[in-house]
Amino acid sequence: MDEHAAHMTPEEFRRHGHAAIDWIADYWASLDELPVRAQVAPGDVRRQLPATAPEDGEPFEALLDDLDRIVVPGLTHWQHPRFFAYFPANSSPAAILGDLLSSGIGAQGMIWATSPAVTEVEQVVLDWFADALGLPAAFRSDGPGGGVIQDTASTATFTALLSALHRASGGEARVGGVGDAQWRVYGSTQAHSSLVKAAMMAGLGEDAVRTIDVDPATQAIDVDALRDAIVEDVEAGRRPVMVHVAAGSTSTGAMDDLAAVAEVVRERGVWLHVDAAWAGVAAVCPEHREHLAGVEAADSFVTNPHKWLLTTFDCSTFWVRDRDALTGALSILPEYLRNAATESGEVVDYRDWHPQLGRRFRAVKLWAVLRTYGLSGLREHIRSGIALAGHVADLVAADDRFELVTEPVLSLVVFRLRAGDEQTLAAMEAVNASGEAYLSHTTVNGRAAIRLAVGSWRTTRHDVDRAWRALQEAATQA
Amino acid sequence: MDEHAAHMTPEEFRRHGHAAIDWIADYWASLDELPVRAQVAPGDVRRQLPATAPEDGEPFEALLDDLDRIVVPGLTHWQHPRFFAYFPANSSPAAILGDLLSSGIGAQGMIWATSPAVTEVEQVVLDWFADALGLPAAFRSDGPGGGVIQDTASTATFTALLSALHRASGGEARVGGVGDAQWRVYGSTQAHSSLVKAAMMAGLGEDAVRTIDVDPATQAIDVDALRDAIVEDVEAGRRPVMVHVAAGSTSTGAMDDLAAVAEVVRERGVWLHVDAAWAGVAAVCPEHREHLAGVEAADSFVTNPHKWLLTTFDCSTFWVRDRDALTGALSILPEYLRNAATESGEVVDYRDWHPQLGRRFRAVKLWAVLRTYGLSGLREHIRSGIALAGHVADLVAADDRFELVTEPVLSLVVFRLRAGDEQTLAAMEAVNASGEAYLSHTTVNGRAAIRLAVGSWRTTRHDVDRAWRALQEAATQA
Ligand SMILES: Cc1ncc(COP(=O)(O)O)c(C=O)c1O
Ligand SMILES: Cc1ncc(COP(=O)(O)O)c(C=O)c1O
Repeated sequence: MDEHAAHMTPEEFRRHGHAAIDWIADYWASLDELPVRAQVAPGDVRRQLPATAPEDGEPFEALLDDLDRIVVPGLTHWQHPRFFAYFPANSSPAAILGDLLSSGIGAQGMIWATSPAVTEVEQVVLDWFADALGLPAAFRSDGPGGGVIQDTASTATFTALLSALHRASGGEARVGGVGDAQWRVYGSTQAHSSLVKAAMMAGLGEDAVRTIDVDPATQAIDVDALRDAIVEDVEAGRRPVMVHVAAGSTSTGAMDDLAAVAEVVRERGVWLHVDAAWAGVAAVCPEHREHLAGVEAADSFVTNPHKWLLTTFDCSTFWVRDRDALTGALSILPEYLRNAATESGEVVDYRDWHPQLGRRFRAVKLWAVLRTYGLSGLREHIRSGIALAGHVADLVAADDRFELVTEPVLSLVVFRLRAGDEQTLAAMEAVNASGEAYLSHTTVNGRAAIRLAVGSWRTTRHDVDRAWRALQEAATQA
Repeated sequence: MDEHAAHMTPEEFRRHGHAAIDWIADYWASLDELPVRAQVAPGDVRRQLPATAPEDGEPFEALLDDLDRIVVPGLTHWQHPRFFAYFPANSSPAAILGDLLSSGIGAQGMIWATSPAVTEVEQVVLDWFADALGLPAAFRSDGPGGGVIQDTASTATFTALLSALHRASGGEARVGGVGDAQWRVYGSTQAHSSLVKAAMMAGLGEDAVRTIDVDPATQAIDVDALRDAIVEDVEAGRRPVMVHVAAGSTSTGAMDDLAAVAEVVRERGVWLHVDAAWAGVAAVCPEHREHLAGVEAADSFVTNPHKWLLTTFDCSTFWVRDRDALTGALSILPEYLRNAATESGEVVDYRDWHPQLGRRFRAVKLWAVLRTYGLSGLREHIRSGIALAGHVADLVAADDRFELVTEPVLSLVVFRLRAGDEQTLAAMEAVNASGEAYLSHTTVNGRAAIRLAVGSWRTTRHDVDRAWRALQEAATQA
């Protein structure tokens, strides 16, 4: 093997591979003792790294050493049991090993023909998962719809918009562009920022997004205001193309009334996209499906197993009712990818389902999660997060200095200090700076609030209590 | 640990993790004996999988069994030593373990503040890599430019176009959309299809791409025709926004004359994007940089370590000369992501560098490759691929029935049977069907050709000779 002197031998791969697995297990075991938030200043990590790549290869152990010495202190630990900020991007052993196997296989599934199992396992897993969430049969791959794994919900929402434009323009958008047809896209003030980003990327611009007010109590979209906006736009000659429904908003977990919105868009041909990036996976529990009522009318739906459902980032599951709208918007067939299977129409070529051409074997990790946990294990995981959030809500209610800002939704609790915005943010910042727990903030009806989102499988009641005690202490100081 | 009954214990993770590593090592050891191309028909894989996800968790071993039983026969083996199709997406032990460590860390680096090391390691590694390729200092992160890891070259080209539109429109495109300004994008007939896809996604439409003829001998863009097209468009009131230069085309590895194109766009303010997805990484060897002559004038540059440079899919390195154009096109700052570090201006928030919001710790695998191989190891790898392609070219030249279609470029050889298109494609299909080797086709000047791209570190002279013998036999039959 002289020719390949620089490559690891199979024995070296096994040895270093086992060491990498052990490094991870040790890292996880150390998490509880580490500050959740990185304690570094800008440039601290960078400064410790050499200025140039090494001329000669280094032993693999050198990388592990630098992870310990330089990287770990520079990390905010997303897998920490007291990480409650944003929405936790929750990783599980099963997902990690599933993705490792995908890397080892190293197949590139841009089209069915380049590695059939990559496509077919993904189709099956997305059918499984659609059923597990109680999604309509129309999203399954055995009808005119189908599912695909996108990297992120942002990409899913972007491709939903491209599909909507394709349908609304009768295929003209992909040929002649979006032009100045005054396309309009709708979402509430609480819609995730990826909606505006999608409109920017698709060439419509930020101004094409009409931001609809919400009910101050529920933070859910004002459906009457939505209807009025659409009618007004149509009358003014503008062209409504997509409505974005938040099934679990980022800020407070607000649930737009999907069924009522569906009623509004019905017969107008406006594309209905449901963004359930965080909350959608809770539908593995039949008792947590109320926010998806009306989903039969949706044209597309996204939820992120990489948030709450144990599937290591990135893994965003996306379904469409009519896959022809999606592939119509995105397909390209250069000569070098022509092949008999594609021409037979019997297969799906996932390259036409997303912006990227090449793609790894994306489904393995979700497949590993679904199989290793089973649906019952996943339900248990979701229910434990919800129960812990309920406990947090009780703690908030029991302390006069605090108040809930909105009703808790699933595993998210939003609250504040009665004392005011400044005190609220100061308390949160004190906890974050201490490293004891990590929380994030938002504004609700113009006032600052703290978000505590439970998501990790490592989080126990003990962790929640520790975070709460830290907040109480900070409140005393604030 | 009752609460987490379904989760693997640390001991189980170690045990299954070691088993997964061993599964990969065994899979690799078996590759040489496996047919390169999957021998399955549409639906064969799907049919073997259960109709629904399991209710109860299964042992992790069940997944490994199904990989052996169902998945492996359904794979076209991209890591096989006789995979010569498309451009090999080449995976190395170091990259796989680097990515495994990234999964274990499970950090989400959407902004600097959410895990500083994720951003800073990426900046450093991209600076290292820019230097290693001899790219201009303007692309380094310590000036107004900088690098980022995109998932794919398609995404890189798309973001280049968005940046170009941002600059050309003076920031108007992100606000009011692209409108009907008649933006025009230029690339040769040999430009990768991701250019047209980018124009479609950005709202310009396919028709916005002007396809410029190539020199029939070199397949490089006709620079005079490009100049004429731009002048004609400007005179007609259309707005040239980006020129795409192929530094190694997909079909034949053609190299557009970057310096000459730079001359054309200079002073017109047209964005110059260099797509060196495959060939760019060869620039780790100083003697293989001629195709990048003129790159100092480029506004953006992409090359894919996930193709030839041993960095498991996906990893596409992308640099811009002016990061403000890129972030100007893509930035969004919702309340919940506001933080002191961002406001200080001292850090980079990578969420504004690509379509996605969330992002994993992307840099670890490239870091692992650069360190484990060292630049000398990477050069050795590139040179060995080029030497093997040279050997293939000699074999082609020595057999009267075959002819080279273009001069070999780096590790790509394009050839055909003199007998004609039908015979050429039949011979390739026979080899592919046999599983002995896997090749892909293209058309050059209207005639069919076979592409043989060397890329894998597993490929030896023996493998190339076996593929060649199979082709010779097929030629006898054809
Ligand atoms: C020259 C060129 N550009 C872009 C691409 C697209 O690559 P990706 O799959 O990374 O988008 C390819 C793929 O082969 C290519 O050869
Ligand atoms: C409701 C909602 N939609 C979309 C996103 C974007 O997620 P991603 O990072 O997968 O693009 C988020 C992220 O938190 C979210 O909460």
